[in-house]
Amino acid sequence: MEGDPTLQLRVFDLNCWAIRYLSKRRQERVQLIGDTLRREGFDLVLLQEVWSEQDYSDLKVKLGGCYPFSHYFRSGVIGSGLCVFSRFPILDTLLYQYSLNGYPYMLQHGDWFCGKCWHGGAGITAIPPLPSCQLHAEYCREKDAYLPHRLLQAWELAQFIRHTSKAADVVVLGGDLNMHPEDVGIRLLRGWTGLRDAFAEATRFEGCEDGCTLVPDNCFTVNSELLPFPLGIRIDYILYKAVSSFTVKCEELKTTTGTAPGTDIPFSDHEAVMATLHIRRQGQAAGDTLGTAEPMLVDVVTEARTEVGVGLRAARRQRYSAGRMAVLALLLLLLQAAAALGALAGLADGQPFPKLSFCLLAFLALGVLLLATGLHLFHTMEVKMLQGTEDQMRMALRALQERP
Amino acid sequence: MEGDPTLQLRVFDLNCWAIRYLSKRRQERVQLIGDTLRREGFDLVLLQEVWSEQDYSDLKVKLGGCYPFSHYFRSGVIGSGLCVFSRFPILDTLLYQYSLNGYPYMLQHGDWFCGKCWHGGAGITAIPPLPSCQLHAEYCREKDAYLPHRLLQAWELAQFIRHTSKAADVVVLGGDLNMHPEDVGIRLLRGWTGLRDAFAEATRFEGCEDGCTLVPDNCFTVNSELLPFPLGIRIDYILYKAVSSFTVKCEELKTTTGTAPGTDIPFSDHEAVMATLHIRRQGQAAGDTLGTAEPMLVDVVTEARTEVGVGLRAARRQRYSAGRMAVLALLLLLLQAAAALGALAGLADGQPFPKLSFCLLAFLALGVLLLATGLHLFHTMEVKMLQGTEDQMRMALRALQERP
Repeated sequence: MEGDPTLQLRVFDLNCWAIRYLSKRRQERVQLIGDTLRREGFDLVLLQEVWSEQDYSDLKVKLGGCYPFSHYFRSGVIGSGLCVFSRFPILDTLLYQYSLNGYPYMLQHGDWFCGKCWHGGAGITAIPPLPSCQLHAEYCREKDAYLPHRLLQAWELAQFIRHTSKAADVVVLGGDLNMHPEDVGIRLLRGWTGLRDAFAEATRFEGCEDGCTLVPDNCFTVNSELLPFPLGIRIDYILYKAVSSFTVKCEELKTTTGTAPGTDIPFSDHEAVMATLHIRRQGQAAGDTLGTAEPMLVDVVTEARTEVGVGLRAARRQRYSAGRMAVLALLLLLLQAAAALGALAGLADGQPFPKLSFCLLAFLALGVLLLATGLHLFHTMEVKMLQGTEDQMRMALRALQERP
Repeated sequence: MEGDPTLQLRVFDLNCWAIRYLSKRRQERVQLIGDTLRREGFDLVLLQEVWSEQDYSDLKVKLGGCYPFSHYFRSGVIGSGLCVFSRFPILDTLLYQYSLNGYPYMLQHGDWFCGKCWHGGAGITAIPPLPSCQLHAEYCREKDAYLPHRLLQAWELAQFIRHTSKAADVVVLGGDLNMHPEDVGIRLLRGWTGLRDAFAEATRFEGCEDGCTLVPDNCFTVNSELLPFPLGIRIDYILYKAVSSFTVKCEELKTTTGTAPGTDIPFSDHEAVMATLHIRRQGQAAGDTLGTAEPMLVDVVTEARTEVGVGLRAARRQRYSAGRMAVLALLLLLLQAAAALGALAGLADGQPFPKLSFCLLAFLALGVLLLATGLHLFHTMEVKMLQGTEDQMRMALRALQERP
């Protein structure tokens, strides 16, 4: 192979659903994932939802021989759940925290506590036989039930990739983006970065129909969630692009199909995505192009901006409601303070208000005041961030439209 | 000048100290800043602590003719306070939020509420007569009383600049870094990014002795803070570097000297920093070099890593204390619940506990429980972030030491 200017890069991506005490048959599945990774010998493994550092450490020990380089991204209260294993040295890592990620008070969704979703870029170099090839593998997990927040995240991710990818020859992005292929967030991400979808570009495909990664055949999937989509949905992606004098082609894309190869249980409630990329050095440097024809890109950014605007107005309304509630609670407290002072000064003639109820009411008012103030602050931040994103999108649209 | 491959870039940087209701003579000073900027006609103006969007809007109206392009960075509850005015088009902006910025419960410091400090990179292009010159102006405000947090921020800033600057020809960083020139954070930032200090490199200098930007001559400075430094301190910087086939030289650096030129009041409690940079296109592309000789850089990163480790151990202790407090409060609550149930069931024979005190004690325990849980979560996040930074620094050290 010496002198051959091509490199085959095999990438594995999986949302592992490894939550301690909550995920079914977690230890068994993590062990299975480790065994498969060791057997298959991928070049680059991107895992999400490895919430326990112990699971990461176990994987690291098991995979040390095959994947000598790895990194676990720490963040938030619980952690990011993201880790990477690589056959090639990881030279540098970088974390980017989305500025909005759901609401801290929606405890059942939990995303706010999970480090707000990060994605890490792992710059990996010295891939033979391309001595100077630099690879940026980024991956991310976006999970949030709210479209404006998801769009803000898609935009921040796209901006981050645009600004950091100039240092790379090839960019690979893998992860659970929690968006369907035709969603505006995915179109925005692809259009604004020029990333290509391995599923759409693959010469050969093998796996679930339409490349779905949440499928009814998987025994861990909650089937009621898939009712509107009888075939399943595709929300886990491998995206890629060549930046400098390289070309990338996806030769083959595979997904698991409900069970892991050679066993009777799945790796996770998501299917794994495996891509074989062919990287080839070109004589001439290719310009960094946008992914979509510009008039279409203008439409996508406009659509995204409209949705962010809708979210912005909703956030403003919630900020206002929370503020009003806080003011009302404060007024009630002041009234009670006045009444208490009055009673102390002996101004009240009649039957005094029962002490216990009075005290309970004061505590209730105080609780509401604190809660409403917290909500007000949170929604103020939300308004600022959505406003900032809308500003950036407006600037991007102007730049797109002014381009000759 | 046509055909001349050099460009003179005049940069203005100021921490404006424009906090509504709190900063002295704010409106007068903002007006003065606007008048001066309009008169002087800089190319790039980087302002910090413009906390009120109204002040930004006023400046924008006043400066529209001279600086047609501007951007205000929104973030956090109050905002970032950062804005940029430019003679050249601003093509794109990007925000990066530091992952740690002081403690939310240190209300008097306030930094946590101010968008956690952001810095924005403004990619500015089409600067004649260098048609293809791209400029990244980044600026930042780091303000935090805690060394490990400050080091984490310096590291994140340096990493961000390293990863985004490949897309630029020239990088300019301006702002109140809140660190003395010989502090480990500044040495880390300069060493790890290759940025050069305009004050140290300037051919001509005019202004306060040693380039100080917090000086006793300024009537807004709190002199007691400067007691250990009779000459003042230098914490506002303009740093720069050329990335691709350009060279940058600082021809002249100026600071204001206690009062704004031609008036009797200062612009702010900080002095303004003004640099004249000469940017010249070179025939040959220069490699992106680190700023400091590598053995020295290893020392700096090691020193920073040690300090981050100290902070990490402190954060672990605080997490433990907060957790213990939460458990104690929970135990007290459970005890009270048991007592109350016992009383209800008629098991208590003697004098019952006075209802009001019982109720107050329960609320107190509940308050402590909530507070301690919040603290525990916060310090858990702090531990993760400091641990992540330490990991990155260790990786950087390994890469430095393995380099041939």
